[in-house]
Amino acid sequence: MTATAASDLDRTVDDVARRAAEAFAGLSRATPATRADGLRRAAAALGDHADELVATAHVETGLAEARLRGELKRTQVQLRLFAHVVEDGAYLDVRIDEADPDFVLGPRPDLRRALWPVGPVLNFAASNFPFAFSVAGGDTAAALAAGCPVIVKAHPGHPWLSERTARIVAGALVEAGLPEDTLQLVTGQDAGVALLEHPAVRSAAFTGSPHVGQLLAARAAARPDPIPFFGELGSVNPVLVSPAALAERADALLAGYVASVSGSAGQLCTKPGFLLVPQGTVYDDAVAAATADVPEHRLLNPSIADGYERRVAQVLAVDGVRVVRSGSFRRDGDGQAWVTPTFVAVPLDVLRTAGPALLDEVFGPFSVIVEYPAGTDLSAVVGELFPGNLTLTLHLGSGETGAEQGALVAALGRYAGRVLLGGWPTGVAVTPAMQHGGPSPATTTDGTSVGTAAIGRFLRGITYQDAPQDLLPAPLRDDNPWGVPRTVSPRGASLNW
Amino acid sequence: MTATAASDLDRTVDDVARRAAEAFAGLSRATPATRADGLRRAAAALGDHADELVATAHVETGLAEARLRGELKRTQVQLRLFAHVVEDGAYLDVRIDEADPDFVLGPRPDLRRALWPVGPVLNFAASNFPFAFSVAGGDTAAALAAGCPVIVKAHPGHPWLSERTARIVAGALVEAGLPEDTLQLVTGQDAGVALLEHPAVRSAAFTGSPHVGQLLAARAAARPDPIPFFGELGSVNPVLVSPAALAERADALLAGYVASVSGSAGQLCTKPGFLLVPQGTVYDDAVAAATADVPEHRLLNPSIADGYERRVAQVLAVDGVRVVRSGSFRRDGDGQAWVTPTFVAVPLDVLRTAGPALLDEVFGPFSVIVEYPAGTDLSAVVGELFPGNLTLTLHLGSGETGAEQGALVAALGRYAGRVLLGGWPTGVAVTPAMQHGGPSPATTTDGTSVGTAAIGRFLRGITYQDAPQDLLPAPLRDDNPWGVPRTVSPRGASLNW
Repeated sequence: MTATAASDLDRTVDDVARRAAEAFAGLSRATPATRADGLRRAAAALGDHADELVATAHVETGLAEARLRGELKRTQVQLRLFAHVVEDGAYLDVRIDEADPDFVLGPRPDLRRALWPVGPVLNFAASNFPFAFSVAGGDTAAALAAGCPVIVKAHPGHPWLSERTARIVAGALVEAGLPEDTLQLVTGQDAGVALLEHPAVRSAAFTGSPHVGQLLAARAAARPDPIPFFGELGSVNPVLVSPAALAERADALLAGYVASVSGSAGQLCTKPGFLLVPQGTVYDDAVAAATADVPEHRLLNPSIADGYERRVAQVLAVDGVRVVRSGSFRRDGDGQAWVTPTFVAVPLDVLRTAGPALLDEVFGPFSVIVEYPAGTDLSAVVGELFPGNLTLTLHLGSGETGAEQGALVAALGRYAGRVLLGGWPTGVAVTPAMQHGGPSPATTTDGTSVGTAAIGRFLRGITYQDAPQDLLPAPLRDDNPWGVPRTVSPRGASLNW
Repeated sequence: MTATAASDLDRTVDDVARRAAEAFAGLSRATPATRADGLRRAAAALGDHADELVATAHVETGLAEARLRGELKRTQVQLRLFAHVVEDGAYLDVRIDEADPDFVLGPRPDLRRALWPVGPVLNFAASNFPFAFSVAGGDTAAALAAGCPVIVKAHPGHPWLSERTARIVAGALVEAGLPEDTLQLVTGQDAGVALLEHPAVRSAAFTGSPHVGQLLAARAAARPDPIPFFGELGSVNPVLVSPAALAERADALLAGYVASVSGSAGQLCTKPGFLLVPQGTVYDDAVAAATADVPEHRLLNPSIADGYERRVAQVLAVDGVRVVRSGSFRRDGDGQAWVTPTFVAVPLDVLRTAGPALLDEVFGPFSVIVEYPAGTDLSAVVGELFPGNLTLTLHLGSGETGAEQGALVAALGRYAGRVLLGGWPTGVAVTPAMQHGGPSPATTTDGTSVGTAAIGRFLRGITYQDAPQDLLPAPLRDDNPWGVPRTVSPRGASLNW
């Protein structure tokens, strides 16, 4: 969709929104089996076109083929996993209160509640995961599983891939018997904003920069009828290393750190932006050794490259920042930037006074090593400097499992959605127990954008009171035709409350 | 808390917020048994002081003693019901993914996710339920059950009752071993707004007018770190009567309608503000008969009375509005207003053109009878005129259970949180399957403020990755010391995805 004038844009946006609303009516009548079939066909169709899609993605994003093949497989798995979620039906959270003349507060009607799709969802695709957080990515899979039509606002960093993916997936959904326009694609920031403010759009998901995310969140909140805006806006993912952990395995830790920062040229929302080590840690040689073999990697697009160059310069201008390893930065004839990783170091007290120039995310292969003095209260440091993250990682010594560490782990939970004991935050598993979302600024709203719990963002509760069996939605009927799990409050039970 | 200067206010607000944050640290360590004990002791303590509390509430609100005794009992039941929820533990939604070297996307770590309390919750109390939606009401019970300390901003309509309730409940919580300041009370709009913007406050709940609710929601969204704002802002709760239903039981329907509008002087968020009946329905005599015995009832406070007087005048000024039954309105020497119910009627086409003057809620004993022509598409009328409600009620004839009605019921679900087939929306059951919340403007955010699902508003997901058993929170440990239900994804299972 390319608009040439405001009125054209309005017409096109209205048309897209109307189609989504019509698709919603059809989707609402589709059985779980049909919805699951649509998700599985979408996954299969992506696989059928894998070579073409990966080649296109490589050209448009500069990401390596092996990484892109893995990401495509992840995207297929996400769709299939949500097919299981739809068939299982536990996500509906069905609750049935039997009518109860003896209810403790007076006669209780028959009440049946489940979670239902909110309506058309607008999904702003990300630049850094052209499959897994884009047209057919996690937000789309979760919304379709919930029963919501999806309008994807394509990321301008991979337009051809977006167009091809949308055609392939939309076709597969229709083949499964789902409505036309269950998945639609639009391009352009103006169309995205206009749709975000359109009455037919009932929810929005976003993965991108804090700046754009906060602007869009404000638009969603300023509507006459505000809608939820699930924005994932970035995170610096501090990794804390205890003296005991360092004493046990300094080399492995530093090598793992460099690898986690360098993969996909650091263009990951879970890249460790800060490594906190005890004052006196020796790391220069280890970082140099680990980075020596890291090849030049293209940044996603010139806009990302500009941002990276600017942020790195801001950090380097902070008094007290020492360069540990200066990476390369080269523009090619197409305006694309090629880089190798850069690492800097600061004492903790510099971090405390430098403010956003040092503390804000640097999107790319860059990370800050922070030296903390003996006796530092790490949970206080995190609360003060890193209060909202997708992840926090703690490396402890093998014997450090006492009350002190327990209190630290509990405190870290306040400031992140995922707390890792060892390991590295990059490489997010797509599973039922994943949480990818954390306190502001990591995400704008509670919820996860990875894993099966992500479906909950696109659902709302509706209760039917005293409805005849024939007028009830299928999962609430006595005969439970979908076979979903249900929690029943029997008559008489309230007398024990 | 009464502030005399801005700096005093700031100091007091900071102090309250700091106390809440400290209480949160303690609450996080409390077992479910202790939290449940606190809720039960709070319920018992309210019962011990029932006579005093009901008498105070009657003086401050004008609500009848029988109603207030019922409401106090409901408030006790809410607290006890949430004690069951805490003990049961299903609300934690515990998910455990076993570590899996053969995971379909590469080795999977051990991942354990549950829902945890968000932190201190600010609860703006309502005027019309001095017990059930006030200091110890549903929002407070849900937040305490979740493990969140609560700061209640007292409603100025019942200050003495608020103070007494807070002392009684806070004392009971401490007796159970919960931290000091688990429940705090503040007064004054300035303190409420300052706390809403305080970094220590992590979520807010509100029950009140759309105007105030929208202002507060905007403040919550404009924070540097926006927090969720669960506002219940009002609803007009249309009741739709089919020709067949009218033919079967016109007298009973009209009597039920008048009773539902008149109870508690119509000062209920689920009061039916509109009754849609077929054109040609004869209702004047039935309304007159049903209202004849309705006694004069005091409105809650002079501010509510002013709003009622103004809104009724606005409706009466709309061209085409016919008065069916003109109620009384009298001010006493204390400035309180005493009223009997008023009913008006309009043809559907007047409703379509009159706009907010007619469509907005009138809080009090007032309702509009709307006559719709034969062949009207009622779902379209609701979508156009009443798109966001707590409840929608449909009265059908006994034989009307076909596809047409099924489609109507499904459509109504889009515009309300609770759909009733017969009966009346007032009298909200406090149970697991209740949904009290609906599309904007009924509530600002998806979620329910009545029933056990209300706890979900004050929780957020946190996943622990590869944590040693000794560092895991209790419900995630292998030995499951709290005995909570858990969903486990075993190793190897992903190969079927």
